[in-house]
Amino acid sequence: MRTIKLVLQYDGGKYAGWQVQDNATTIQELVENALGTVLQEKIRVSAASRTDSGVHALGNVAAFKTSNPFPLHRLHRALNGILPPDIRATEIVETKEGFVPRYAKEKTYRYALAFGEFVSPFQRRYAWHVREALDFGAMQQAAEAFIGEHDFTSFTAAGGGEKTHVREVYRFEFGAGGVISACLDDKDICHFDITANGFLYKMVRNIIGTLVEVGRGKIAPAEIPKIIEAKNRALAGPTAPPHGLCLLSVKY
Amino acid sequence: MRTIKLVLQYDGGKYAGWQVQDNATTIQELVENALGTVLQEKIRVSAASRTDSGVHALGNVAAFKTSNPFPLHRLHRALNGILPPDIRATEIVETKEGFVPRYAKEKTYRYALAFGEFVSPFQRRYAWHVREALDFGAMQQAAEAFIGEHDFTSFTAAGGGEKTHVREVYRFEFGAGGVISACLDDKDICHFDITANGFLYKMVRNIIGTLVEVGRGKIAPAEIPKIIEAKNRALAGPTAPPHGLCLLSVKY
Repeated sequence: MRTIKLVLQYDGGKYAGWQVQDNATTIQELVENALGTVLQEKIRVSAASRTDSGVHALGNVAAFKTSNPFPLHRLHRALNGILPPDIRATEIVETKEGFVPRYAKEKTYRYALAFGEFVSPFQRRYAWHVREALDFGAMQQAAEAFIGEHDFTSFTAAGGGEKTHVREVYRFEFGAGGVISACLDDKDICHFDITANGFLYKMVRNIIGTLVEVGRGKIAPAEIPKIIEAKNRALAGPTAPPHGLCLLSVKY
Repeated sequence: MRTIKLVLQYDGGKYAGWQVQDNATTIQELVENALGTVLQEKIRVSAASRTDSGVHALGNVAAFKTSNPFPLHRLHRALNGILPPDIRATEIVETKEGFVPRYAKEKTYRYALAFGEFVSPFQRRYAWHVREALDFGAMQQAAEAFIGEHDFTSFTAAGGGEKTHVREVYRFEFGAGGVISACLDDKDICHFDITANGFLYKMVRNIIGTLVEVGRGKIAPAEIPKIIEAKNRALAGPTAPPHGLCLLSVKY
């Protein structure tokens, strides 16, 4: 058996997320079907991140097993030929047996925010538009409170099924520009990049929803450690919409 | 009568270009209808560039007349509220009587090319994907031959209705990145920015189609002055597709 590793890039806007489900088109389903068509066998693909409906990826990592000796450069071409153009395999390599994509050392997500009166037509699918003026200084201060090892119960949603809610956030950085950047339009867009050893269900979107409440002056930055400590979802902010979120990279 | 100047940004992918036509949705029609709804009168809008079907704009300039004293900041908000999200007015100001958007001093277009095996899902709507390896040195050399005042008959299409085919190209520059840039993906995308005192019908797309033939080795850079000189459309390359083209700015 060969173990094949894929790196996938996708615009999640049209899809019901990664994981196969009834009555909705998912990225996993399309990738499995495309590989199945080329390799002429039933293929099961697992991913580092089961991204939610509407969430994008620049580098999700997936893997599957096959005994088919099909050359990988031909498989790469055939796979991209079958997949719709908003899903691309950017890399396909053979890897060691037992490779499990979700056992990653770290993952980095980017969340993009568009602010001001209107959002650019080129950004609107990849950034959350927040009309009000935000206090970015307070938001950056709040972001720092998430760094380190914490129980993130206050920032997850039911349905994740994780054994523990403890995760370690390594970096949480603010920057200009979005997931994509219109060439003349960077001034009205910014992003937060968050790197951790793992993320709970909806964790990034709940953290960002909370940061925006900080930016609006509704939650003080000094409250964040207390909200984390309380392990109570009701104390944190709302869930930010999915289209501003993009899985940037996964490291092993 | 007031003369109102608008700056418009749009993703042209879904539209049959700027100019009103039967049986197809155009940007002019949507802008005129939205303004008409707010101002409660029939509004006629003219633009600096009647962009073709599928062509984008970061800053097309348009103007209309009205005797309605409606406050502009409210008009701006109402207009963006009515327009679909892939068309935005980024600016709206009162200007001097007799302002005609198409009497511009210069216009700048960007044409984006994606190269390599596949095009990123985030770039595919805004860049022409050319699979073959291109000789960018030759393309840049060829681009220089377009600079200056020339009769561009070899690079226009029937239907423009211009009185003269003479235009002056001020700048023609090559750069990394596209109309929009995915944050991790700039290496497989580049652009040409062309600035002139005016452009003939399909001129940029015909020039880019010709440059790509140069990049493919099918036309030598030294042939470009001869192709210009010949005033014969049949000697130039094919028309590049519209979705790689974006009107960046118009100056007066």
